Amino acid sequence: MSAPFFGDASPITYQGPDSRDPLAYRWYDKNRVVLGKRMEDHLRFAACYWHSFCWPGGDPFGGETFLRPWMHMPDAMAAAHAKADAAFEMFRLLDIPFFTFHDLDAAPEGATLAESVDNLKVITDLFQQKMADTGTRLLWGTANLFSHRRYMAGAATNPDPEVFVYAAGQVRAALEATHALGGANYVLWGGREGYETLLNTDLKRELDQLGRFLSLVAEHKHKIGFKGPLLIEPKPREPTKHQYDFDVATVYGFLERYDLLADVKVNIEQNHAILAGHSFQHEVALAYALGVFGSLDMNRGDGLLGWDTDQFPNDIGEMTLVFHEILKNGGLGTGGLNFDAKIRRQSIDPVDLLHGHAGGMDACARALLNAAAMLEDRAIEAPLASRYAGWDSAEARAILAGDVSLATLADRALERGAGPQPTSGGQERLENIVSRYA
Amino acid sequence: MSAPFFGDASPITYQGPDSRDPLAYRWYDKNRVVLGKRMEDHLRFAACYWHSFCWPGGDPFGGETFLRPWMHMPDAMAAAHAKADAAFEMFRLLDIPFFTFHDLDAAPEGATLAESVDNLKVITDLFQQKMADTGTRLLWGTANLFSHRRYMAGAATNPDPEVFVYAAGQVRAALEATHALGGANYVLWGGREGYETLLNTDLKRELDQLGRFLSLVAEHKHKIGFKGPLLIEPKPREPTKHQYDFDVATVYGFLERYDLLADVKVNIEQNHAILAGHSFQHEVALAYALGVFGSLDMNRGDGLLGWDTDQFPNDIGEMTLVFHEILKNGGLGTGGLNFDAKIRRQSIDPVDLLHGHAGGMDACARALLNAAAMLEDRAIEAPLASRYAGWDSAEARAILAGDVSLATLADRALERGAGPQPTSGGQERLENIVSRYA
Amino acid sequence: MSAPFFGDASPITYQGPDSRDPLAYRWYDKNRVVLGKRMEDHLRFAACYWHSFCWPGGDPFGGETFLRPWMHMPDAMAAAHAKADAAFEMFRLLDIPFFTFHDLDAAPEGATLAESVDNLKVITDLFQQKMADTGTRLLWGTANLFSHRRYMAGAATNPDPEVFVYAAGQVRAALEATHALGGANYVLWGGREGYETLLNTDLKRELDQLGRFLSLVAEHKHKIGFKGPLLIEPKPREPTKHQYDFDVATVYGFLERYDLLADVKVNIEQNHAILAGHSFQHEVALAYALGVFGSLDMNRGDGLLGWDTDQFPNDIGEMTLVFHEILKNGGLGTGGLNFDAKIRRQSIDPVDLLHGHAGGMDACARALLNAAAMLEDRAIEAPLASRYAGWDSAEARAILAGDVSLATLADRALERGAGPQPTSGGQERLENIVSRYA
Amino acid sequence: MSAPFFGDASPITYQGPDSRDPLAYRWYDKNRVVLGKRMEDHLRFAACYWHSFCWPGGDPFGGETFLRPWMHMPDAMAAAHAKADAAFEMFRLLDIPFFTFHDLDAAPEGATLAESVDNLKVITDLFQQKMADTGTRLLWGTANLFSHRRYMAGAATNPDPEVFVYAAGQVRAALEATHALGGANYVLWGGREGYETLLNTDLKRELDQLGRFLSLVAEHKHKIGFKGPLLIEPKPREPTKHQYDFDVATVYGFLERYDLLADVKVNIEQNHAILAGHSFQHEVALAYALGVFGSLDMNRGDGLLGWDTDQFPNDIGEMTLVFHEILKNGGLGTGGLNFDAKIRRQSIDPVDLLHGHAGGMDACARALLNAAAMLEDRAIEAPLASRYAGWDSAEARAILAGDVSLATLADRALERGAGPQPTSGGQERLENIVSRYA
Repeated sequence: MSAPFFGDASPITYQGPDSRDPLAYRWYDKNRVVLGKRMEDHLRFAACYWHSFCWPGGDPFGGETFLRPWMHMPDAMAAAHAKADAAFEMFRLLDIPFFTFHDLDAAPEGATLAESVDNLKVITDLFQQKMADTGTRLLWGTANLFSHRRYMAGAATNPDPEVFVYAAGQVRAALEATHALGGANYVLWGGREGYETLLNTDLKRELDQLGRFLSLVAEHKHKIGFKGPLLIEPKPREPTKHQYDFDVATVYGFLERYDLLADVKVNIEQNHAILAGHSFQHEVALAYALGVFGSLDMNRGDGLLGWDTDQFPNDIGEMTLVFHEILKNGGLGTGGLNFDAKIRRQSIDPVDLLHGHAGGMDACARALLNAAAMLEDRAIEAPLASRYAGWDSAEARAILAGDVSLATLADRALERGAGPQPTSGGQERLENIVSRYA
Repeated sequence: MSAPFFGDASPITYQGPDSRDPLAYRWYDKNRVVLGKRMEDHLRFAACYWHSFCWPGGDPFGGETFLRPWMHMPDAMAAAHAKADAAFEMFRLLDIPFFTFHDLDAAPEGATLAESVDNLKVITDLFQQKMADTGTRLLWGTANLFSHRRYMAGAATNPDPEVFVYAAGQVRAALEATHALGGANYVLWGGREGYETLLNTDLKRELDQLGRFLSLVAEHKHKIGFKGPLLIEPKPREPTKHQYDFDVATVYGFLERYDLLADVKVNIEQNHAILAGHSFQHEVALAYALGVFGSLDMNRGDGLLGWDTDQFPNDIGEMTLVFHEILKNGGLGTGGLNFDAKIRRQSIDPVDLLHGHAGGMDACARALLNAAAMLEDRAIEAPLASRYAGWDSAEARAILAGDVSLATLADRALERGAGPQPTSGGQERLENIVSRYA
Repeated sequence: MSAPFFGDASPITYQGPDSRDPLAYRWYDKNRVVLGKRMEDHLRFAACYWHSFCWPGGDPFGGETFLRPWMHMPDAMAAAHAKADAAFEMFRLLDIPFFTFHDLDAAPEGATLAESVDNLKVITDLFQQKMADTGTRLLWGTANLFSHRRYMAGAATNPDPEVFVYAAGQVRAALEATHALGGANYVLWGGREGYETLLNTDLKRELDQLGRFLSLVAEHKHKIGFKGPLLIEPKPREPTKHQYDFDVATVYGFLERYDLLADVKVNIEQNHAILAGHSFQHEVALAYALGVFGSLDMNRGDGLLGWDTDQFPNDIGEMTLVFHEILKNGGLGTGGLNFDAKIRRQSIDPVDLLHGHAGGMDACARALLNAAAMLEDRAIEAPLASRYAGWDSAEARAILAGDVSLATLADRALERGAGPQPTSGGQERLENIVSRYA
Repeated sequence: MSAPFFGDASPITYQGPDSRDPLAYRWYDKNRVVLGKRMEDHLRFAACYWHSFCWPGGDPFGGETFLRPWMHMPDAMAAAHAKADAAFEMFRLLDIPFFTFHDLDAAPEGATLAESVDNLKVITDLFQQKMADTGTRLLWGTANLFSHRRYMAGAATNPDPEVFVYAAGQVRAALEATHALGGANYVLWGGREGYETLLNTDLKRELDQLGRFLSLVAEHKHKIGFKGPLLIEPKPREPTKHQYDFDVATVYGFLERYDLLADVKVNIEQNHAILAGHSFQHEVALAYALGVFGSLDMNRGDGLLGWDTDQFPNDIGEMTLVFHEILKNGGLGTGGLNFDAKIRRQSIDPVDLLHGHAGGMDACARALLNAAAMLEDRAIEAPLASRYAGWDSAEARAILAGDVSLATLADRALERGAGPQPTSGGQERLENIVSRYA
């Protein structure tokens, strides 16, 4: 038997804000009660399989840097076992309650779909056992419909219906595996559902295909009794030039169009938000406003780079505002905080995985505490309510209720003479208030 | 009486591709029939009032450069008349069939709304007479709900309902003026409907306000018998940090949500498209696919600058693809090509206005001819049909019709063994084909 | 005499981190000694005249929102006095040690250059008296060579040499006024030294003109005995499409080319840095590395917007890293932290100016404390030294000294067989360390 | 022996603008004389080895799509031979005069540097023979100092001097191979010379290391009698967060600092230019203005994507302006037009390689013809000369010559009273002129 991947690393524990231990939680104290709920239950952290255990450290200009042992084993299923051992060891060291995976992260692709499905079943059983042993739960599963060359022009939106069919086969297996493992949600991120050039793309037809595919999955979910929501992940571009699930607003329109609002929610990622030209807070606030909030992929991008860097989150200011939205809207529900984040290509030591996750978890915990304090003080809520107070009058409410016509309002405006005087938006004052908490 | 603004400039006429006259049309030959329709009827060009006659040449770092005579007249209504003289003189010199305006472009704002409305009536009468004299028609009118400080926090989405009311007053007058002048459409672009910071913004509430406002306008439009569509103009940011009408997909979701799809379409602009991270062709193609195409604001941005530069269009390659979409989808309908474009701040000679418009019109004409040839040859359509041919089989159509379940498809995939083989997307070949036309 | 602009506002004082007073310093304690120096001497804060007292709140889509009294006075010199009263009142309320101004911020432009120069002299005298009364000092002065239409195509780089000459006249007066007021530096920011289109631009010629202009100013500075450095402000674009002073690296090359390194340094701004695709820290670190660091314009941009938003700074994480560079390199020298920052267009209350500045000063103070702690612990310095330790060997130093040829090194590489093994870059670990301080 | 990679494809020949053959040159007529020189000698086209023959079609979200036979051969040297056969077959089919390669494109990396060098020698001999057979020439060679994990933290700028030494070994071999093959230039593009985070980076030290490395290569070049210039390739980011060779202006400053201007020029790429926030024309014009123009990597990026897409060029308008700069400045010199361009990941047919190159070559040819016509007519040159005519006066020339002081100029400005009147920049007129040619 091989040496443990993380050597003799000790579990990471809460040691308080003054700790100088580089591998201790300074803010994440899982049993600490915040606004009536344990931190662990607020945050619902998940580690992902792909970035940490499947990515070899390559980028478009260079190959593997990590040299993980399981990436060099001749027997693919033995490698899958070794990988699972390392993954669950990390979950244990971090004391992280959830994980997430794609079918092909967990089990090797076979020569046929049947083989792939069989491989997945073996690993699903292994997961089941490991989950029972450790108490780790599954936040969500998903199917990889983008890496293999058959998907190079999309899965559901492929010009070849055979690819749609193949994708259906993969998704049924992944959805059922997720169900078997008690997954809280099932994810379908955009993958290659998009286009490289409109010259070879029938936009309308492809949207219809995508709508149909999701409907099929939603029907199947009900058939097998899977209770969690389906999650779509907004992303504007990469790998394709244009991803159909561009951002939260786009996905909302799509779900309206194909009548999928009851079954499908969004899984929002900071890095995707900024690539789409939105702040992370915007995407989260909008998802709640439109009733489609599902879950979060917790990472950060680099505002100066035009691609998905998937770094571990550490911007407390930004995250404080995001957690403020979450708390204000009643929490994450079945969702969670999935670290769809990867250590840098040069972070080649196994312990770097622990640094990345621990830092991210601690940053979330701190932001949660900030946001809770802000909410308890109504630091932002109170000025907001007062800013819109005019709309609470009966006259104003009648306008919104649709009881007054344009002509009536126009006449009223004419009568009132000079228009209303504006009042200060107070942005600097509000920003200073937030700074006090963040 | 003052000297004519354009001096002794001659009308610009079609002189053919070999002309070296810098102020001749080399491609725009209004009576030339293309795919069964006169060029003028295909293109439906409009000049706008604001950029060419109201903007003094200022930018955030400097003041006026143009020194237009009417901007220095003490009597505001006399200035409005002088401005109208110059504008209609330009329409005549260009032989441009349409124009567009905001209420406050045309007539000065008064001390009260009533005064403003009266001023607008005077100028509307003047326009009516000038339109009758010259044959120039109105593509659309709109109300300026963003320049005055009362609108600094939005019009329909203002936290103060009195501002909503005032805006209703302005829009009724502008819509009725547009109706009186036989306008083909009425526009409501986003203006300051958006936010500067989420710290002082109730997103959900503001969206509801905006939905209500549009519904009021739609109801009034029907009441007065105005037949044209209302047009919203997608734009992602500027003046606000986030504009609610971010892009076509966002507007579509909004129209779905507030049940406005029957009355409201989109007016798309190249510069707004690229600021939102989309190609111009994408926004146009998507609007047709979603059934919300309305009209175009014809300008170009600078892909290297992060703000709206509103330059006159001249990228024939890009425009060829856009006109291909338009022709393929049956043309502009009640819409047109409005030059929401401004000459550069350093282009201080009146004749620069003629150069800008003439160049833009010629570029559109040339792109139209390219696109028509491409469509007649089915240069792009034929390979596209062949790429998706697989979806024409009965089996594939049944999938899209919703007659087959995920399980059935998954079983089918398992039976078929190895997945399908991909075929080349042929992007370079298709790009070379387009190059042949553009 | 008119009412005081800030009403009965009280001076802002240090009240400690737990203060809930929205107008108190929680971190800026000017006499607190940090690393052997008073906070005030570390930070050398300056308020600027233009954003706070000259900008009316307009943007490209709307006019004035602020309605400052001096902007509506018929007598320009009386207005200049009223403005100075308000400005020095703000300096007093903030207890800010420095200010900065353009010639035309302070004194109105006359019908001729001579008149403008006379106006400036009057106001310079006024400033001198107010500075003596209050103890406020001048961080730097500068000339506005970009707002008037004569400068629309640049000042030093104008195609018309008469504009170059006029600019020389303005700069002499502004430099001498700065000298008379004991200014610590003199600034020449790029203004409109750049181009809108290469079609009408002779790049090489304009660079030569700019080099010459700066040399003239440097010579004059020596002639009059002004001791402070000249400062250039890197900015990539806006108002022009391309500004010649694109970023620190570009300015460095320019100063090398025109032999100006001895007299000219850079004044770096966060918002300009990110518009150029660089982090603020990068520009500061590079300026120190190249020996051209001069001063900082302290504001922040919005990474999602493509223009200069000039917001008050509040990103403690980013600023901690910047202050770490500053402290590590011996401090600001004659430079300072100039708030080239403006309150938002909707922040129409005078008190919003106090909120903006106080928040910014507090954020800087906090970042300074973080950075000082980080430096004292060698938290980043120690791992850095160890990472490059290999270069301390005699063999490695000989390489850098130029004592070894490529052939010798290549032979050595051949002898050593397999190449060296990489070591982890440890980015996540280092980021977590910084998080502990920030 | 295996089947020829391109099957029975015929050589691509010039067939004139009206040809409908998708694989014919419509504009590239190599022997056509333009401004006194053959098209082939103007354009000096080169195909690159890496994108077309070494890249498997992978991207960050998926693996190989191309399945090139030589990528699946067990014997690496046999694969290198098969690859060379395919490459030279493509050069022949395209009738392209030059090629370019990295050491590791051509020959497989061995277990030691010595093995790698030996492999390269074998392939160099093969190239020599094939070049003699076909007449294909080498535009430049280079060494891959970025793909192997040893280079993950840079080559010359690595914190470990052993990596610097190893890189020296690789570069000597690649430079000597380039010399042996009669290469016209030698390239050192930035690779991973940059940083991921300033937290683990000593900026100044790394710049010094890079300066030293280039000096070593320059010395060796002279020692072995290699006459061509060394070329650096500006790129702002990717693979690293910050590349030291950010853009032309940055590289110029670097070359000044390390006294390398005599030996090193720049190899400019469109995609890198726009990633740096510059137009392609800007970078080319600036390189000529600063005397550092070397060569071009001819591709295009996508202005809406934030990464290097390396598409084949087809924007005639942009390229016309670039060729105008080239012709105006006397041509490419030892440089050429290297297609550092790749077919899309979905373009999996060998013939797609021919479509990509042929389209790119034709686009260049057409742009060259446009530019030549524009230059012959002095269409842009004449208005430019007239715009700056004021600087031709003796008085103005004295200013630039440094014969007049600031004080003298300032006095002159005071005497002249009101400042100069601006004249129109005429941008729209000039753009229309260009449209006539493009």
